[in-house]
Amino acid sequence: MPQDGTAGSTRQFKVVGTRPPRPDGIDKVTGKARFGADMYVPGMLWGLVLRSPHAHARIKKIDAGRALALDGVKAVLTSADLPDHSNGDAGLRDALENVMARRKALYDGHPVAAVAATTQAIARQALKLITVDYEVLPHVTDVEAAMAPDAPILHDHIFTEGVEPKPKAPSNVAYRHQFGHGDVEKGFKAADVVIERTFRTEATHQGYIEPHACLGDLRADGSADIWCCTQGHYMVRTMCASLLGLDISRLRVTASEIGGGFGGKTVVFLEPLALALSRKAGRPVKMVMSREDVFRATGPTASSAMRVKIGISKDGRLTAGDAELKFQGGAFPGSLVDMGAMAAFACYALENVRVVGYDVVCNRPKLAPYRAPSAPIAAYAVESLIDEAAQRIGMDPLELRLKNAAREGTKSSYGPTYNRIGLMDTIEAARRHPHYKATLLQNQGRGVASGFWFNFGGNTSTSLSINADGTVAVAYGNPDIGGSRASMCMMVAEELGVPYESVRTIIADTASLGHNDVTDGSRVTFSAGIGVINSARNAIKVLCARAAAIWGIAPDAVTWENGAARPAGPNAGKFKPLSLKEIATQFSSTGGPIAGHFEYNADGAGVSFGTHICDVEVDPDTGAVKVLRYTVVQDAGKAVHPSYVEGQMQGGAVQGIGWALNEEYWYGEDGRLQNPSFLDYRVPVASDVPMIDAVIVEVPNPGHPYGVRGVGETPIVPPLAAVANAIAAAAGVRLTHVPMSPPRVLQAIVASTKGKNHSAAAE
Amino acid sequence: MPQDGTAGSTRQFKVVGTRPPRPDGIDKVTGKARFGADMYVPGMLWGLVLRSPHAHARIKKIDAGRALALDGVKAVLTSADLPDHSNGDAGLRDALENVMARRKALYDGHPVAAVAATTQAIARQALKLITVDYEVLPHVTDVEAAMAPDAPILHDHIFTEGVEPKPKAPSNVAYRHQFGHGDVEKGFKAADVVIERTFRTEATHQGYIEPHACLGDLRADGSADIWCCTQGHYMVRTMCASLLGLDISRLRVTASEIGGGFGGKTVVFLEPLALALSRKAGRPVKMVMSREDVFRATGPTASSAMRVKIGISKDGRLTAGDAELKFQGGAFPGSLVDMGAMAAFACYALENVRVVGYDVVCNRPKLAPYRAPSAPIAAYAVESLIDEAAQRIGMDPLELRLKNAAREGTKSSYGPTYNRIGLMDTIEAARRHPHYKATLLQNQGRGVASGFWFNFGGNTSTSLSINADGTVAVAYGNPDIGGSRASMCMMVAEELGVPYESVRTIIADTASLGHNDVTDGSRVTFSAGIGVINSARNAIKVLCARAAAIWGIAPDAVTWENGAARPAGPNAGKFKPLSLKEIATQFSSTGGPIAGHFEYNADGAGVSFGTHICDVEVDPDTGAVKVLRYTVVQDAGKAVHPSYVEGQMQGGAVQGIGWALNEEYWYGEDGRLQNPSFLDYRVPVASDVPMIDAVIVEVPNPGHPYGVRGVGETPIVPPLAAVANAIAAAAGVRLTHVPMSPPRVLQAIVASTKGKNHSAAAE
Repeated sequence: MPQDGTAGSTRQFKVVGTRPPRPDGIDKVTGKARFGADMYVPGMLWGLVLRSPHAHARIKKIDAGRALALDGVKAVLTSADLPDHSNGDAGLRDALENVMARRKALYDGHPVAAVAATTQAIARQALKLITVDYEVLPHVTDVEAAMAPDAPILHDHIFTEGVEPKPKAPSNVAYRHQFGHGDVEKGFKAADVVIERTFRTEATHQGYIEPHACLGDLRADGSADIWCCTQGHYMVRTMCASLLGLDISRLRVTASEIGGGFGGKTVVFLEPLALALSRKAGRPVKMVMSREDVFRATGPTASSAMRVKIGISKDGRLTAGDAELKFQGGAFPGSLVDMGAMAAFACYALENVRVVGYDVVCNRPKLAPYRAPSAPIAAYAVESLIDEAAQRIGMDPLELRLKNAAREGTKSSYGPTYNRIGLMDTIEAARRHPHYKATLLQNQGRGVASGFWFNFGGNTSTSLSINADGTVAVAYGNPDIGGSRASMCMMVAEELGVPYESVRTIIADTASLGHNDVTDGSRVTFSAGIGVINSARNAIKVLCARAAAIWGIAPDAVTWENGAARPAGPNAGKFKPLSLKEIATQFSSTGGPIAGHFEYNADGAGVSFGTHICDVEVDPDTGAVKVLRYTVVQDAGKAVHPSYVEGQMQGGAVQGIGWALNEEYWYGEDGRLQNPSFLDYRVPVASDVPMIDAVIVEVPNPGHPYGVRGVGETPIVPPLAAVANAIAAAAGVRLTHVPMSPPRVLQAIVASTKGKNHSAAAE
Repeated sequence: MPQDGTAGSTRQFKVVGTRPPRPDGIDKVTGKARFGADMYVPGMLWGLVLRSPHAHARIKKIDAGRALALDGVKAVLTSADLPDHSNGDAGLRDALENVMARRKALYDGHPVAAVAATTQAIARQALKLITVDYEVLPHVTDVEAAMAPDAPILHDHIFTEGVEPKPKAPSNVAYRHQFGHGDVEKGFKAADVVIERTFRTEATHQGYIEPHACLGDLRADGSADIWCCTQGHYMVRTMCASLLGLDISRLRVTASEIGGGFGGKTVVFLEPLALALSRKAGRPVKMVMSREDVFRATGPTASSAMRVKIGISKDGRLTAGDAELKFQGGAFPGSLVDMGAMAAFACYALENVRVVGYDVVCNRPKLAPYRAPSAPIAAYAVESLIDEAAQRIGMDPLELRLKNAAREGTKSSYGPTYNRIGLMDTIEAARRHPHYKATLLQNQGRGVASGFWFNFGGNTSTSLSINADGTVAVAYGNPDIGGSRASMCMMVAEELGVPYESVRTIIADTASLGHNDVTDGSRVTFSAGIGVINSARNAIKVLCARAAAIWGIAPDAVTWENGAARPAGPNAGKFKPLSLKEIATQFSSTGGPIAGHFEYNADGAGVSFGTHICDVEVDPDTGAVKVLRYTVVQDAGKAVHPSYVEGQMQGGAVQGIGWALNEEYWYGEDGRLQNPSFLDYRVPVASDVPMIDAVIVEVPNPGHPYGVRGVGETPIVPPLAAVANAIAAAAGVRLTHVPMSPPRVLQAIVASTKGKNHSAAAE
């Protein structure tokens, strides 16, 4: 593959690294950008979902007769309209059942029926006219309760995988994962200090502002159009085709603008229902979730119970790490505990390491990924212990991390050996940062934490056309969730040697461009970046051939430099260079349209590390924690558009702070979600957080022509621990239950004051 | 270029030549297809155009104050809002002025202002509140009157081009064109019979059912989206960018379904106005023409006055052909008389031929191309004379044509020497057809005529993706006006060896795919066909490489046959063939998405010929002509989807019959169009015409891998003459003025009966 990775470190860039205006900026600030709910087509119906009010219930009968009799109701959908096309694929079967309950409702909010009507009001009325006969079953919403022997069992067909001998009884534990190497028992024996602690984290939601919305039109011949807000319209295509038994080629999915996703829009909820309703009603169907729908029935994170143990020598050498992670990921397997288990100790060079993860089902909505999924949870526990260890041996916590930091050649705790990485650079930059030495007052404390994310590569298709006026059109296939339009334009402008302003990107629909993996894993700037860079390089080959034809010389006697074809070798200087625009205007007479394409399954996405510094003030009377100052240091490999990179670092930190301090799902005794609104589920607002200081470190990724690494996910990994460590420093209590909300902090302070416990593991 | 043209004649096709269901069929018959007026976006405004009621008037002042004061009016547009970006390009300047009158209104219906308002009703009201102060000028709407020395002059800057010495006075004659070779005077001297006659034809409209409609959104950063009904969305992009001074890359144009175009939708009318209104109002603007708007202000054909002269020997050898064609093409140059002049004698091998064409402007709407533009007009005159010549020397008219027919190696009357062509084959097939020998009754007559069209090639970009389930997505860039979705699917299925049903085409928007020339000149099945065939061949290279990787052998040791990769050479038979689907499912692990692309400026579009037989009955008391039987014989090169080819042949014939018998623009003394509705401008309906018999002849075009020739335009060329010749046979009168409506036919019969004239050149 045409990669010249190491060039990233020395190459002089003209466009990459600058901060031009974002292409989607004006549309977004003027309200012109079209989001999921902004599509209208003639004759369209409105679809709404009837959701289970029970956490666990057998569906005995659904009577939609009265609803269907209502004027304006055009279709009612139940699972009977969705035959199972999964062919033994458990993931597809679960996805189908999550989209619409089949025999049982498995969580509060689980869809049991859907209607399509001419107006939203009629659809709402129709929902009330559908009678569902439920047999309510015992439920479980806590991960440890779900693992108990007497727990209500959600699925008869789940027997824990990954254990020997294979269990005979069905269980809520779907998988046991194990990662690691060395001998942890030996490691702990070699330690001077061994610390072990349990932790709990609660489920949080990605908190995207835009609820899920789509418009689906499935026609009699099996062809369909979908407009939707998603992180991956190709994923929507594949899933809808698979769930409804359609040909992929007949589905055309167009991604709207997206008002936040953070992983939560990498799965389908409404889209298959809209299509199935459309098929039944013979008309396009639009569906838009309410905020309550979003909270009750889309994917939050796992909640967890963890036990972590580390051993350390007096001089600060980590001798062993051992962790047991129990994650519940809602009503179907896939809590992503494996990612947490892989990420837990990924920052450290450990000779002896073991992480066991349990993937548990509960009567809650199925998890969806959330920005560096599972890593913040695991890092919260591990980085809290690292902090405590530093305290115990009297070493600076960054010094301790530096001493044990993973580096090039380290065998990671999850298997692979690291290539060139930037963890140590971020720790050193944090240590040098003025923030780290700033004065603190009473009730104030400083915490640090490091974090890791894998970063993905994956399948990418990109196309590029040179227009007749010398402007450039770039098509790629990933919704722009973090500035990729700008970074694609910049990389193309860099390669072609044209101004940023003359390059325009679009996010192509699934029929116009080949497959692209979902926008996740911080893959796009890396992967689609390789795509557009190589598309541009392929177009340059054509441009050079056209120049050669105009000059009447051999194509390989032409080079491309500074946006122009130049005769090379024996012809050097013989002809005046031809600019891209000069060649472009002659496209028709020199052979036709000029384009460049690239398809690729990219590997080599360099792993990413960051180190955060957090100052908090704890109110000892209320337990309220205020974040005073926050600095994110992170390795971006090469920051294509530094403002966007900083924005990612700031945004990730703020989401992490919200998770650390306030956000959590509250389930009642009845198994119902108690706080499905932004009033009761409190995300940080601007006044809750200080301006986040962002420091970009650039340790080029050898797997990308410019050295780019994904940057979007790592910044949410350290905050939980950084905040916890700062609270420990400020209040002398170590919080082991996230979110560290005022009641929990206060309880810990009170317990600590009473001297009941050395550490205040709340609850 | 990878073409294996001659294979067309012998190759065994599996899919090409069959008649599968059309991909857009269900959408169209169920009303789901979305046409130009079917797009809605939030916040959109409605735009309407204020049109001149005068054929020729100076615009002294436009007062839009009262309109702007009306609640709901968001913008009023005049030419002052459209600065001239034409930079000396006369075509662009004229296009800008046609879109919106600048100093003068040049025809009844010429736009002078436009409004955008929140509702159509408010927009209509606003139009009435705009005051335009006109100075009415003398006008001219007849081609010969416009050429007269005392004619009102439309443009001060037009001096006839193509004459020496260059004229000093401005004129309504924009160009003089001349084509031909040999010495016509010598040719006429060698003739036994010389016939000379004058002819007139009236302007006709393409009569598409769907009026022009678009939705434009031009934002503050100069980026724009346009949804419109057009034959060429890339043309719309280029024209809007040029007229409004925008970067091509910032315009994204999506073509709606199209309810007929026939050439009339190859130019912009509303699109630049919608964008300019949108820019001014800051909101998207939708504009839809009324039928009256369509008639008054879009492009009909030229009207003409012609003089044609031929010489012939007693044994039926044409010795010379000479013609003078005067075409008025409306208010701006470009009557396409040059095409008529080139096509006039293109069917014949002539040693001495000369055609002179005059391009004349008049106070009428600017012409737009109409199916084989100008050729039917010229063929009407020439083929009428050929018929008369056959009568005069007592030879069968097909025999006469056969004797003089152009063939491979003939130097055409317009210059090039013909490659392999099928004119003789169509004449012979017509002669063999039972229709040609069928019995006729009293007042009935039979006419024949041949016709020619160039067929275009041009710029094409196509892309093809292999989906993970083995289905195939094809993107091309030409609105489907005649079945190209089906033919693209078929050619791709043929190449890849997969079923027709698994291939799905879309018409990509301008940002998703490189440039494509407009859908005209019968170029798409030929040109885009070459594109998709070669895209498929490029994808096959990738598929073979993937198979080679799976097998661990060299990529060039793999062949593609019957939809599967097979090991070849020394590895033949060593591995089980891998089907397209089997390779497709492994795309991710073998290197990423699988695609094929092709960009090309195609030449080699083989010229096309047809020969028609027409039986009519003439009512001697009313002059009414009834077409009793009609047969179209035409060379399709290779008919990809014979039903569509037959449909084109039938449709072209019916439009030609309408033109021949009824359709015409009536301008009053006041210079206003008198019949701008389908009530008064009468196109044939189903009960007016018999079922058209279509006979496909296949003489492969060496310029296409399968031998394809364009088929859409040629069938409208012969009908005017075929009907005229049939009327001559039935009623003994030769009509020299089209349309041959009952009054004209009756007048000719009456004149003939009175013995006033040998031939009844009406008026």
